[in-house]
Amino acid sequence: MSGEEERPEAPSLEKRVTQAGRHVGDRYVRIVRPIGSGLRGHGGRYVATEQTMVAAGRLGRAWNAGLRVLIGKRLHSEAEAEERVGVATGLPILASDNISSSAYATEEAMRVLALAGVGALALTMPIAIAVVFVLAIVVLSESRVIRAYPNGGGSYLVARENHGVIAGLVAASALLIDYVLTVAVSTAAGVAAISSFMPEIHPYRVPIGLALIALLVIGNLRGVREAGLLFAAPTYAYMLGMVGLLSIGLFRIATGDVPPAAVPPDPFDPAGTVPLTLLLVLRAFASGSVGLTGSEAIANGVPSFRRPETRNAVFTLVLMGTIFSVIFLGLTYLATTIGIRPDQNEIETVNSMITRSVVGAGSPLYLFVQVSTAIILLLAANTGFTGFPRLASVLANDRFMPRHFADVGSRLAFNFGIASLAVLAAVILAAFGGSVNALVPLYTIGVFLAFTLSQSGLVRRWWRLRNPGWRLSMVINSFGAAVTGTVLVVVAVTKFQLGAWMVLLLIPLLVALLYGIHRHYQTVQDALVLSGAEPRVPVFAAPVVIVPIARLDRAAMQALAFARSVSPNVKAVHISTSRASGDEFRRRWERLGTDIDVDVLESPYRSLVQPLLRYIDAIDKSDDRPITVVLAEFVPRHWWEWLLHSQTAFRLKANLLFRPNTIVIDVPYHFQDTADLSRG
Amino acid sequence: MSGEEERPEAPSLEKRVTQAGRHVGDRYVRIVRPIGSGLRGHGGRYVATEQTMVAAGRLGRAWNAGLRVLIGKRLHSEAEAEERVGVATGLPILASDNISSSAYATEEAMRVLALAGVGALALTMPIAIAVVFVLAIVVLSESRVIRAYPNGGGSYLVARENHGVIAGLVAASALLIDYVLTVAVSTAAGVAAISSFMPEIHPYRVPIGLALIALLVIGNLRGVREAGLLFAAPTYAYMLGMVGLLSIGLFRIATGDVPPAAVPPDPFDPAGTVPLTLLLVLRAFASGSVGLTGSEAIANGVPSFRRPETRNAVFTLVLMGTIFSVIFLGLTYLATTIGIRPDQNEIETVNSMITRSVVGAGSPLYLFVQVSTAIILLLAANTGFTGFPRLASVLANDRFMPRHFADVGSRLAFNFGIASLAVLAAVILAAFGGSVNALVPLYTIGVFLAFTLSQSGLVRRWWRLRNPGWRLSMVINSFGAAVTGTVLVVVAVTKFQLGAWMVLLLIPLLVALLYGIHRHYQTVQDALVLSGAEPRVPVFAAPVVIVPIARLDRAAMQALAFARSVSPNVKAVHISTSRASGDEFRRRWERLGTDIDVDVLESPYRSLVQPLLRYIDAIDKSDDRPITVVLAEFVPRHWWEWLLHSQTAFRLKANLLFRPNTIVIDVPYHFQDTADLSRG
Repeated sequence: MSGEEERPEAPSLEKRVTQAGRHVGDRYVRIVRPIGSGLRGHGGRYVATEQTMVAAGRLGRAWNAGLRVLIGKRLHSEAEAEERVGVATGLPILASDNISSSAYATEEAMRVLALAGVGALALTMPIAIAVVFVLAIVVLSESRVIRAYPNGGGSYLVARENHGVIAGLVAASALLIDYVLTVAVSTAAGVAAISSFMPEIHPYRVPIGLALIALLVIGNLRGVREAGLLFAAPTYAYMLGMVGLLSIGLFRIATGDVPPAAVPPDPFDPAGTVPLTLLLVLRAFASGSVGLTGSEAIANGVPSFRRPETRNAVFTLVLMGTIFSVIFLGLTYLATTIGIRPDQNEIETVNSMITRSVVGAGSPLYLFVQVSTAIILLLAANTGFTGFPRLASVLANDRFMPRHFADVGSRLAFNFGIASLAVLAAVILAAFGGSVNALVPLYTIGVFLAFTLSQSGLVRRWWRLRNPGWRLSMVINSFGAAVTGTVLVVVAVTKFQLGAWMVLLLIPLLVALLYGIHRHYQTVQDALVLSGAEPRVPVFAAPVVIVPIARLDRAAMQALAFARSVSPNVKAVHISTSRASGDEFRRRWERLGTDIDVDVLESPYRSLVQPLLRYIDAIDKSDDRPITVVLAEFVPRHWWEWLLHSQTAFRLKANLLFRPNTIVIDVPYHFQDTADLSRG
Repeated sequence: MSGEEERPEAPSLEKRVTQAGRHVGDRYVRIVRPIGSGLRGHGGRYVATEQTMVAAGRLGRAWNAGLRVLIGKRLHSEAEAEERVGVATGLPILASDNISSSAYATEEAMRVLALAGVGALALTMPIAIAVVFVLAIVVLSESRVIRAYPNGGGSYLVARENHGVIAGLVAASALLIDYVLTVAVSTAAGVAAISSFMPEIHPYRVPIGLALIALLVIGNLRGVREAGLLFAAPTYAYMLGMVGLLSIGLFRIATGDVPPAAVPPDPFDPAGTVPLTLLLVLRAFASGSVGLTGSEAIANGVPSFRRPETRNAVFTLVLMGTIFSVIFLGLTYLATTIGIRPDQNEIETVNSMITRSVVGAGSPLYLFVQVSTAIILLLAANTGFTGFPRLASVLANDRFMPRHFADVGSRLAFNFGIASLAVLAAVILAAFGGSVNALVPLYTIGVFLAFTLSQSGLVRRWWRLRNPGWRLSMVINSFGAAVTGTVLVVVAVTKFQLGAWMVLLLIPLLVALLYGIHRHYQTVQDALVLSGAEPRVPVFAAPVVIVPIARLDRAAMQALAFARSVSPNVKAVHISTSRASGDEFRRRWERLGTDIDVDVLESPYRSLVQPLLRYIDAIDKSDDRPITVVLAEFVPRHWWEWLLHSQTAFRLKANLLFRPNTIVIDVPYHFQDTADLSRG
């Protein structure tokens, strides 16, 4: 390091003698290389094996063992490619959200119409047909999205690429909120499916919902593919149960054996309480269009399909739309034909009443339908756990969200996103008392906002690119954008007072937050990233080193020795509370016979930290190179022993961290058991 | 530093060229000295002025300003000698605890006797005489303690010197518990004095007591002398009030105008509920001997008296005994002559009833007596705040308690002891519902245990030293030990079930804790303190430095430059999650053209911390000198911005702290506002 101050740009040419080293040019440098400890490799490239992942110590090993039981063994990064799904597995994972909406879409429309009396319920079927019509438009438009963006990203990516960053963030915020609500609504509906035949659990619907969310977290931390295998069967069971129910119901109606309607203990007023206005019909349509939620999941999740991803995704999308439409229309037809009326207290669901009417409460098919409904709704909640972490990781990679969301966990899952989603959904579920009906007004806005932004984004894209077939695609997406935009306005207006205002308020706040995060990362990036073509490691002169010494013990000797080994410019400083003790310290120091200078600083007000900080300030003014402070720190054997030691070093460190141009070196003195032995 | 490994004991003789330096022997060293920043002095001795005490930043200045308003400006260490008191000021500070016991001692004896019926109350006067007799013995014995130990320390010091460490710790534990109870009991009694004439505050006695404790904390943080001045007047007011009350009462009785007894709304059963046994009488005596509490404060506090300390202390002690005895006997005589009966609900005190009977509830003297009683009881609580922190600091200096207890605050008070006492007393007060009667059984044991240990200790001391007059002193202290020992047994037996067992259990636990703390400090001391006559700063070779690099940015360049400035043995290490990104990093590294080697460590399980720790382990095995890890740390401008950055550096530091032979160097990269400007 000598001579550097005179020629600050030249590397040191000094020759050093060490135990084992080699010549680099005319410089002799010790060889520093890793040996053993579970690292494979040589020559500067090493690979960490699985055994190196386990933290040392009993606690570390126990934590690792517990985690492996709960979420499975670690997955190698190269395992990632295998974590993909085909149509049969992709359908339960990505389409269950949409299909499961049939468990409550009919009821939600009916709950609004019932306000105008039993007669108004006849409008349920036309509304259901309108919803299915919109879904068909959406499926058609989304299939264009999948083809245009085979790498996924969905509405966020499409809106961002074609409308700009702000539109992208609006779509992203809408979807993030939507995923949280998917988890909350689906969990609440799942619990309602159970409470329909076990009314005694109705008072505990919130804690039961929270427990189910916890279950989903564990499943998702295990990784995407196992979650698919775990949940595939129940989706097909639900479809099977629905086919059975619809067949029997339609057969009975066709043969003139219309079942008598099962009636809830506390149904809506048959005469109605409000007049049947157009606004009420639109509100019922807005409620029914909850059946469209979840249909964006497939476009977002294209990359999790096996090759050919695009074809598999589109096929799954069409399958999803068909299955949903059949179930939804069938159930709505049965409900209106039989004459079901929704339950004011939300204890029994409309679907449960339909099934009870058609097959009877004692039938095994009734139980099968209710249980498979509950499970597919859990699967729908799981779609949120697939979508939210993935979108969050895309946003984190684009630096719109904290980078933790992009970290891939030991099972290749986005653990931070999974945990954040669970916390948010749990809070929402508890805040709304586990009621589907209370949550639904918040739910559909995000979906239709995202749809509208992505469809209209695609319109701009076709216009810009004009690749073969662009005219048809543009017509499809223009129509899609117009339809979903209209639904968006209908939902926002009719549900505004019921809770939609919260989402409409939250989206701009979220956009501002994401944008603020991005600005921060950008500013930091600008400050940190090296400009210029040829970055160089700058050459620093040996630092000025300050060593605060409380007393002359082994820890202090070690700190002084280390300080002297890194720089010739070392100054010790001792704080004394009286002149006499300061003089005594200096006498002892002189007996050390060291070449290190000491300053004694009297602190007549007995504070240690502040005078030391001022002393460092004073040293700093005499020079412009970084100040280096070496702190001797005693490390006891047990954590509780910290309490018995003065936290001066800690307070000093906390104060120095924010001091510009200051480097802190901790020289820990570890308690050695030999010392204990020597005491006898 | 070169050549050190070959001749490890010789200091470096290398010659360095620096900007400003001097020759030490044949070595050239930069001059490092403080300039400005509120430090006075030169030539290696500096004094921190008051202005250096204030923390930097707006928050620091605001905190300082608030603290100065609350507890006053900082006191210079040399101000300590002035913080002493004469008899007139010492009496309220050190004797108020004992004198104020007269506010409840009569009542506590009567409450026990009243269990055996109204007739048993006639025994109150003989019991009071017995208590005063014991007090006289104690005063006589304590005056010998003061003469033998003019530097204070009281029972702990006396017991430790003459009976050994364990006896000393028993006395210390007993006194520490006693001080906590002094605060709790006196505060509770003070609130009772007020609730006697304002029964509506009785339900709020706990929160009012806690508020009073908070007031005492502030007073005591301001320092001992101001506390004395603040509280001197009320003590004399109490004495004055009592003299007035006793004069009027005795005059009326002497003139045959015996006042009718004020009766509480819910007095004890006149027929009694238990038989009048010897045990009950002893229990009443044990309760009445609560009047002896606080009499040890003067012997403990000798050094806070002005010169001649011993004579001032003895004079104050005798004065205290006389004043207490006159008031206590006078009140007891009035109570029994008038025929007062204690209140079952503890709403009105016996003293309040006496005063009400003698002068009438409407008289200004009644109000004066009650208010001055409340205030002297607060003063008594304040004695705990004088005694506990002082004893704790003595114990901390002897390394039996955490060293924080010995730290002298900005106002020369033992802040940590004051705060600890306040918390403990508040918890006790709340746990016992603010009832004096519930607390008293716990109270007297500690006092008599400490008395017995110190008196018997003095007996051994006189026997050992045999200085002039030792025979008389030995007789006095033997008698004192016998009497206080007997009272101790009486209190322990009669109050065991009522709560004394807690104290008898707590004392050995506390002794074990203090002893354990001492062992810890002793072991650490043995490990740290340099043995041998001539300690030397060892000579370390330049360290092996590992620099983990996440990406090649300014922060990394700074860390690398610093690492190279402190050692020629520098190795950079990069963790990559894939081979491709590792290769890319190596290509970028090679473009740097630095002479520092890099190892690329692939982590296929995506963990950063564990592989890095294993890598450091592997490096460590190849050498036995300390491993030095240089961490580049980005310091954002605002604390909340930490959330947006990965906490890898922090987790690494936490893991490395407990790793033996490892030194961590933080190279903070501070966010610079210029970067912000350059963005525009």
